[in-house]
Amino acid sequence: MTDVTVAALADLVGGRLVGDGARVIVGLADLRTAGPDRIGFVRNVRYHASAATTLAGAVLSSAELSTPASQILVTDVDLAYAKIAQLFHPTPRARSHSIHASAVVDPAAELESPVAIGPHAVIGRCRIGAGTVVMAGVSIGDDTTIGRDCVFYPNAVVYGGATLGDRVILHAGAVVASDGFGYAREATSWIKVPQLGGVVLEDDVELGAATAVDRGTLGPTRIGARSKIDNLCHIAHNCVIGADTVMAAGCMIAGSTTVGERCVFAGQVGISGHLAIGDEVRLGGGTVVLKDIPNRGEYMGHPLMEKRQFLRLLRKLRGMVERPEAGAEGV
Amino acid sequence: MTDVTVAALADLVGGRLVGDGARVIVGLADLRTAGPDRIGFVRNVRYHASAATTLAGAVLSSAELSTPASQILVTDVDLAYAKIAQLFHPTPRARSHSIHASAVVDPAAELESPVAIGPHAVIGRCRIGAGTVVMAGVSIGDDTTIGRDCVFYPNAVVYGGATLGDRVILHAGAVVASDGFGYAREATSWIKVPQLGGVVLEDDVELGAATAVDRGTLGPTRIGARSKIDNLCHIAHNCVIGADTVMAAGCMIAGSTTVGERCVFAGQVGISGHLAIGDEVRLGGGTVVLKDIPNRGEYMGHPLMEKRQFLRLLRKLRGMVERPEAGAEGV
Amino acid sequence: MTDVTVAALADLVGGRLVGDGARVIVGLADLRTAGPDRIGFVRNVRYHASAATTLAGAVLSSAELSTPASQILVTDVDLAYAKIAQLFHPTPRARSHSIHASAVVDPAAELESPVAIGPHAVIGRCRIGAGTVVMAGVSIGDDTTIGRDCVFYPNAVVYGGATLGDRVILHAGAVVASDGFGYAREATSWIKVPQLGGVVLEDDVELGAATAVDRGTLGPTRIGARSKIDNLCHIAHNCVIGADTVMAAGCMIAGSTTVGERCVFAGQVGISGHLAIGDEVRLGGGTVVLKDIPNRGEYMGHPLMEKRQFLRLLRKLRGMVERPEAGAEGV
Repeated sequence: MTDVTVAALADLVGGRLVGDGARVIVGLADLRTAGPDRIGFVRNVRYHASAATTLAGAVLSSAELSTPASQILVTDVDLAYAKIAQLFHPTPRARSHSIHASAVVDPAAELESPVAIGPHAVIGRCRIGAGTVVMAGVSIGDDTTIGRDCVFYPNAVVYGGATLGDRVILHAGAVVASDGFGYAREATSWIKVPQLGGVVLEDDVELGAATAVDRGTLGPTRIGARSKIDNLCHIAHNCVIGADTVMAAGCMIAGSTTVGERCVFAGQVGISGHLAIGDEVRLGGGTVVLKDIPNRGEYMGHPLMEKRQFLRLLRKLRGMVERPEAGAEGV
Repeated sequence: MTDVTVAALADLVGGRLVGDGARVIVGLADLRTAGPDRIGFVRNVRYHASAATTLAGAVLSSAELSTPASQILVTDVDLAYAKIAQLFHPTPRARSHSIHASAVVDPAAELESPVAIGPHAVIGRCRIGAGTVVMAGVSIGDDTTIGRDCVFYPNAVVYGGATLGDRVILHAGAVVASDGFGYAREATSWIKVPQLGGVVLEDDVELGAATAVDRGTLGPTRIGARSKIDNLCHIAHNCVIGADTVMAAGCMIAGSTTVGERCVFAGQVGISGHLAIGDEVRLGGGTVVLKDIPNRGEYMGHPLMEKRQFLRLLRKLRGMVERPEAGAEGV
Repeated sequence: MTDVTVAALADLVGGRLVGDGARVIVGLADLRTAGPDRIGFVRNVRYHASAATTLAGAVLSSAELSTPASQILVTDVDLAYAKIAQLFHPTPRARSHSIHASAVVDPAAELESPVAIGPHAVIGRCRIGAGTVVMAGVSIGDDTTIGRDCVFYPNAVVYGGATLGDRVILHAGAVVASDGFGYAREATSWIKVPQLGGVVLEDDVELGAATAVDRGTLGPTRIGARSKIDNLCHIAHNCVIGADTVMAAGCMIAGSTTVGERCVFAGQVGISGHLAIGDEVRLGGGTVVLKDIPNRGEYMGHPLMEKRQFLRLLRKLRGMVERPEAGAEGV
């Protein structure tokens, strides 16, 4: 268990300390149930009452409160909370070298000590960096390079020919480097086009449960550093996704499309193939993108529009079917 | 093999017996191919001819037919069929205690006899109730509690910290308690917010293949008793889904949204985060929900409307592009 | 490694040879980096410059080029490329009989030599044809028949009662014959209807990562020969999909719907249950289908229309919210 003073926590998050900095904190808790060795947090005004009567040793908030607890004041509570929560609940990391007896590891695999390989994992002729945790039932193909401090949850699969950076997280059932969906037509039928490219997941990429990133046709499919892809997403062959982009669940990007940096897609967005989406594009849930989006901005809908405009369209469409009844009432 | 008289089947489903109740039935069959030890069923009038000439020992229907078979008459054929089918094809259940030699079971796991643990399953420091069947390649994390008579199909994954009731069914590749998609922004990048809550699946919940239910941020994500979630659905962190709700494939519910009881969602519905959907809300396929739905009813579309109204909108939209040509013809 | 003359490659693809046919080729490469034992290809005019200066031994293209390489001229470069790529990168196939020591194979399983069964695979009382490769962590249920030369990638799952033809490919996490989503209503609750039908995947079907095909209620769910289903698709119980049909990622077909032959669906298409879609129907991304489509053609949208018409509707809808501002400018 991690234990740390309130003063050290204030330092960690660059916050201003109010009250006793020497108190020792061992974890997070709800302000209403917390004991003196816990830190709670106040995100909005409706928790002020809890702060006033809490037994917690410390409170994290954006403004000074009336509370018996020591206080850490920050401008961004969410960010400070994330950092403190990571301190007490760090991402899993291999600290001693362990390969479960039931794991099947290719003799030519290069495992940089320490790594932790779980039960029934199957490790091909690949390289895995120190600190990486490979959980139960994970399968990693040949000719794959995996960085340090990665975490692969149970039953994730990495086909051969993938390159993963440091601190990549794959959730359960995620699939990396499955064949791209490429066929050539012969008469009325389809001939499979071998998919020879791999996948590159740069540092700090996280893929959600059952998300699939297909291998490229010749070159790699690529996801930029620190991008986060939620559950049940699909990144098709030859896509290039920029750094710091996030996609919520169910987003599907068709083949050879490029997505910029710092984009934010809500759930179930679909983007056609061979398009270019610029940096800092935000897309609303269920948006269908059939053409390039060169400029940053907030877009939505089908037809794709600026969000503000699409919301106006939705109101107009509602009006189209509501008006008749209003008219009838007027008669 | 189960064998049972027609009279006992009529009792089971609360039906009225017509003809010989002593015939012994051992299973279901199509009326056209059934032998005298089988029961067939008639759901609609186009099967009446089959009933007249069937060799089946019994027929289940909602109205008396001209048939040589014994008859069981019920008001709801579908429900009676389900009960009879369950009798002959019960959900798998552990009847003797068996742990496959290749399974890896934490010595601290508490398994209430009888449970059946399949090949290559990995069982953490958890509790599993009697009757539960854990099939091949399933992974169950630490600090998880699983009820009685559950069935986990191959390669389903339950992360640590989940609580599952009795008779929960997880289909292949379903994922329970994967990390919620939570990040705090730092400059232009994203910092992972550790997801500390678990998941609660109440009694009789069923999750389809490759469906993911994320763990909560602090408290649990919860799915109410008897709710059924089809394949490839996503229930985000902190959602609370009421009892007796069904969602067809591809539904995605964003974070912290609550859904009421007895809702019915068709496929590919998307619901934004932090919304409240009431009881008995029915949503059509592909509906995008961006605001609360407090009242029961049947809704559809994007913009979301009452179904009747949205279908009217669809007709109007069709008219918008069909009319010009009609006009041209008129000229 | 495969080595073959340019003349033999020209024969393979039915192309016209220009230049030296005796050169030996061992693989594919990008024209800009290829050595003399490689073949490159030119799909469009912007690669003509690369052809002029390439060191490649051969070039595949649709028109005679200025190049030092031997040339193979074909009418369909994509198709010829696919065939040449398959020669150098064939689909995996078992050439010697091997069952990994950690695999669990039912003694009653009938494995036609040679098959390759990977680590931690679990094989029920089934039949598997020669040439089939079953990779790590795959689970195959009882009473299943699998043809020759199939490839099942890691952690794919086939429930019992399925019938797969020859050369079927299942990508990682694909699920075949999971229970259909069938419940009968009892009061306000739901009773599971046992799903007794199986699944038939005919010859040369390919299922993407995390795609699920549910078993039928009484008869089988069926996917026709040579049909290709991308990642994260859902084919519900009792569907019948025709031959040579392709569906991109995220398509979801509800129960008992039939889809014809040679259809092409873009991503995230949703089709309601109990519908009939004819042959050679093409559907745009995100299309929601609520009624039968009897005639071949290209359709799109919600409301569903002919593509040309729907694109016109999209323009009109854009106009509805753009015009007012234009008007304001005009004032």
